[in-house]
Amino acid sequence: MCTIQASAFRGLCKFSRWKVQDSCKTVRGMKTKLFRHGIQALHRTFHTSIPQCSTTTPMSPSLQNVEKILGVQKMEESTEKLFVGLMRHDRASLARAITLIESSNVQKRRQGQLLLTSVLEHLKDEDTVSSGGLRSFRIGLSGPPGAGKSTFIEYFGKYLTSLGHRVAVLAVDPSSSTTGGSLLADKTRMPKLSVDPNAFIRPSPASGTLGGVARNTNEAVVLCEGAGFDIILIETVGVGQSEFAVLDMVDLFCLLIPPAGGDELQGIKRGIVEVSDLVVVNKSDGDLEPAARRIQAEYISALKFMKKRSRIWQPKVLRISSIKGNGISELWELMCEFREMLGAAGELKSKRQRQLQVWMWNHIRDRVLDVFRRQHAVVQQLPELEDMVTKGLITPGLAADILLEKFLVAMAK
Amino acid sequence: MCTIQASAFRGLCKFSRWKVQDSCKTVRGMKTKLFRHGIQALHRTFHTSIPQCSTTTPMSPSLQNVEKILGVQKMEESTEKLFVGLMRHDRASLARAITLIESSNVQKRRQGQLLLTSVLEHLKDEDTVSSGGLRSFRIGLSGPPGAGKSTFIEYFGKYLTSLGHRVAVLAVDPSSSTTGGSLLADKTRMPKLSVDPNAFIRPSPASGTLGGVARNTNEAVVLCEGAGFDIILIETVGVGQSEFAVLDMVDLFCLLIPPAGGDELQGIKRGIVEVSDLVVVNKSDGDLEPAARRIQAEYISALKFMKKRSRIWQPKVLRISSIKGNGISELWELMCEFREMLGAAGELKSKRQRQLQVWMWNHIRDRVLDVFRRQHAVVQQLPELEDMVTKGLITPGLAADILLEKFLVAMAK
Repeated sequence: MCTIQASAFRGLCKFSRWKVQDSCKTVRGMKTKLFRHGIQALHRTFHTSIPQCSTTTPMSPSLQNVEKILGVQKMEESTEKLFVGLMRHDRASLARAITLIESSNVQKRRQGQLLLTSVLEHLKDEDTVSSGGLRSFRIGLSGPPGAGKSTFIEYFGKYLTSLGHRVAVLAVDPSSSTTGGSLLADKTRMPKLSVDPNAFIRPSPASGTLGGVARNTNEAVVLCEGAGFDIILIETVGVGQSEFAVLDMVDLFCLLIPPAGGDELQGIKRGIVEVSDLVVVNKSDGDLEPAARRIQAEYISALKFMKKRSRIWQPKVLRISSIKGNGISELWELMCEFREMLGAAGELKSKRQRQLQVWMWNHIRDRVLDVFRRQHAVVQQLPELEDMVTKGLITPGLAADILLEKFLVAMAK
Repeated sequence: MCTIQASAFRGLCKFSRWKVQDSCKTVRGMKTKLFRHGIQALHRTFHTSIPQCSTTTPMSPSLQNVEKILGVQKMEESTEKLFVGLMRHDRASLARAITLIESSNVQKRRQGQLLLTSVLEHLKDEDTVSSGGLRSFRIGLSGPPGAGKSTFIEYFGKYLTSLGHRVAVLAVDPSSSTTGGSLLADKTRMPKLSVDPNAFIRPSPASGTLGGVARNTNEAVVLCEGAGFDIILIETVGVGQSEFAVLDMVDLFCLLIPPAGGDELQGIKRGIVEVSDLVVVNKSDGDLEPAARRIQAEYISALKFMKKRSRIWQPKVLRISSIKGNGISELWELMCEFREMLGAAGELKSKRQRQLQVWMWNHIRDRVLDVFRRQHAVVQQLPELEDMVTKGLITPGLAADILLEKFLVAMAK
C-alpha cells in the first residue's frame, strides 16, 4: 500500500477534526494573522525599502499596483466567511469559492485572489508543521467519448471515499463554452458520488479560452486542497489541446480507453498515449474481455516504442471493469506505487515546481497577447496586414514588425 | 511524372534565360517600379486617406512608423545590386542577401526587409503573368543522427539537378548556437552538391532562439525562390521543437530513418512520425537490407494507427539506399505524386496561406513576449515573483496579473 499518501491522509483527518471543533473566531483570527503575513511578504517582494507594514498604516503610492490587484483595503466579510467555510471543509463554501475565482467581475476576482493567497499561506504553514510529502494526489484522466469516463469516476471515486479519502472531481473542457454546457464532471452522470459527503464534483468552467479554463482549474485545485480534499481528479476529453493543459496540472496522467481498436481509436492523438503514465482499458468484462486483452497487448507493444518520460517510472497498461469493479484496487495500488516511487526520488516535487513556472508563463503569454490583440492600433491594422501576408505581399516577419511598432507607439502615448 | 512541377520549371528556365540576356539597367528599372508599387500598397494599407504617394514627395508624419521599419528613404545601392543579382540567379548575391536578412544590425535588417518586399512583389507579378501553380516545391527533411541525412541530400540533390532542377538546401538547427556551429547543411558533408552550379547550400543561422532561426529560414526561402530555385530542401535534426517549426514551412514533410529499431529509434518523437508525409528508411543495401525491410513493415503498421492529416494523402513508407541510389527515383516520383494530388485539390495553396498566418502570430508572440521580458519593471520583479510562485506563496495566475500590471504601468510612462 502507499504509506506516504496514507500518512498524509491521517494528518489531514486529524487536522480536520481539530478545525471543526475549533471556534469560528479562532479560525478567523488565524486567517487575519496569515493574511497579514502574506501582505508583508508581498511588501518585502515589491518594496524592499519598507521593512515593516501593516494594513492599518497608510499605503505608500508605490504600493498602489499590488493593492489594485489584491484589493487589500476591501477584504470583504463574505470572503472571510468563505475562508472559514473552507477551513471547516464545507462543500458549499468550496463551491462558492470556486465561483468567486471564476467570476468575470473584477472586484469579485480580486476577492478570489485574496482568498487564494490566504489559502496558500494556510497550506504553507500547515506543511511546515506537519511531516513532509505532498498533501494531495492530483490525477489527470483523459479518454475519448465512449471510454466510460463517468462510470469509471463514479466507481473509482466511491472506492476512494470508502478507503477514507476525500475526492474532488474537476473538469477541463474548453469546448463546453461553444456547446453551451459541459458533459464532463456532470453530477447527474455520477449519482452516487455526487451525494457522497466526502466527494466534491465540479463541472468545467464555461469561460471561452483554454487558458482561462486552465487558470480557473489550477486555482480550483488550490481551493479543493484548502478544503481538505486529498485526491483531486481532473477529467478532460480526448480532443484538442486540453489534455496537454491537464498534463501540466497533475502528478499522474491516466488515459482511459474503450476495448476498441483501429478506426475507433483514431481520435486518440498519439501524443497523448506518449505522455500517459497509465493506460487503462475499460469495459473489460463479458463479451468485450477478449477485445480488451487484445487492445492491452497492442498498447503494451506501442508503449515500448515510445520515449521514456520519467527516469524511474515505466508506463503500464491494465484492464478494468468499472461496472463489475474488476481491477480497480489494482489500479489504485499502481497509482500509489507511482506516487511513492516518484515522491521518494523527488520527481513529484520538482514536477510541481516546474508546472507552476509553466503556468505562470502560459498566463503571461495569454495575457500579453490579449493586451496586444485588443490594442486599438492593432485592431485597426491587423485585418489588412493579415490579408497582405496571405497574398504574399509582405513576409509574416515584416507584418509582425509593423504591428509591434504600432503597438509600442500606441502604448507609449 | 509530375507535370505541374515540370511546367513550372520550364517557365522558370525561360524566365531565367530572358533575365540573363536582359540588361542590368532594365532589371533595376523594373525593380524600382516594383518597389514603388510595394510602397504604394503599404500606403494604401496604413493611410487610406493618401491616394497617391511617390518616394520623392515629402512624407507625412504619420508615415514615420512604416518608414522607420522599412527605411524607405535610404534604399542603399548595395541592396539594389543584391536584388539585381538575385534576378540574375547569382548564388553569391543570394548568399549575401541571406546574410543581410540574418544581420543583427538594425539598419541592415531594414535593408533586408526592403529586399524581401521587392522580391515578393517581383514573384507576385511573375505569378500573375505565368500559369497557376506554386513556383517551388518546399520539402522538409528530418531524421535522427545516423540516418544518413547528408549522404541522402548529396545524392538526392545531384539527382534533382540532373533532371534540370535548381536545388536550395537550408537548415534549421537552433542547437547550433550552443555548440558553436551547425552540423547541418555543412558544405563539406556534400562535396559534389556544393560545387554544382544549380545547387545552393546554406548552414543553419547561428542566432539563439528557434523563433529567430525560423524567421531567418522562412525569409531565406523567399530569397531562394526569388533567385530561381524551384526545389527548397529544409533540413533539421530529430530533436526539440525544430521539426514542428519546419513542418510549418514546407509542402511535404519527410522523415529519414536508419534501419535500426527499438532503442536506437527512441530518440524519434512519436509526434514526428505522425506528421510525416513520407517515411524513408535509408541504408537499405547489403547486410542492412533485411533490417530495413523489417523497419519498413513496422512503420507501415504504426502509420495505420495514426490519425490522417490530409483528406487525400495516405503517408507512405519506402526504402532507399543513398550510396547505391536505389529507390531515389521512386521517392521523387512519390513526392511529385503528392504535389500533384494536393495541388489539384487546392490543399497546398491553403496550407501555405495557413503557414503564413501561423508564422505571423508566432513572430508576434515571440516579439511581444520579448518586449515584456526586457521591460525594466518586469526584469526587476520577475525573480522574486518566480520564487514566490515556486514556493507556493502566490498562484501563477496572480503572479502573471502583478507582472502584467507592472508592465502596463511602466509602458504607459
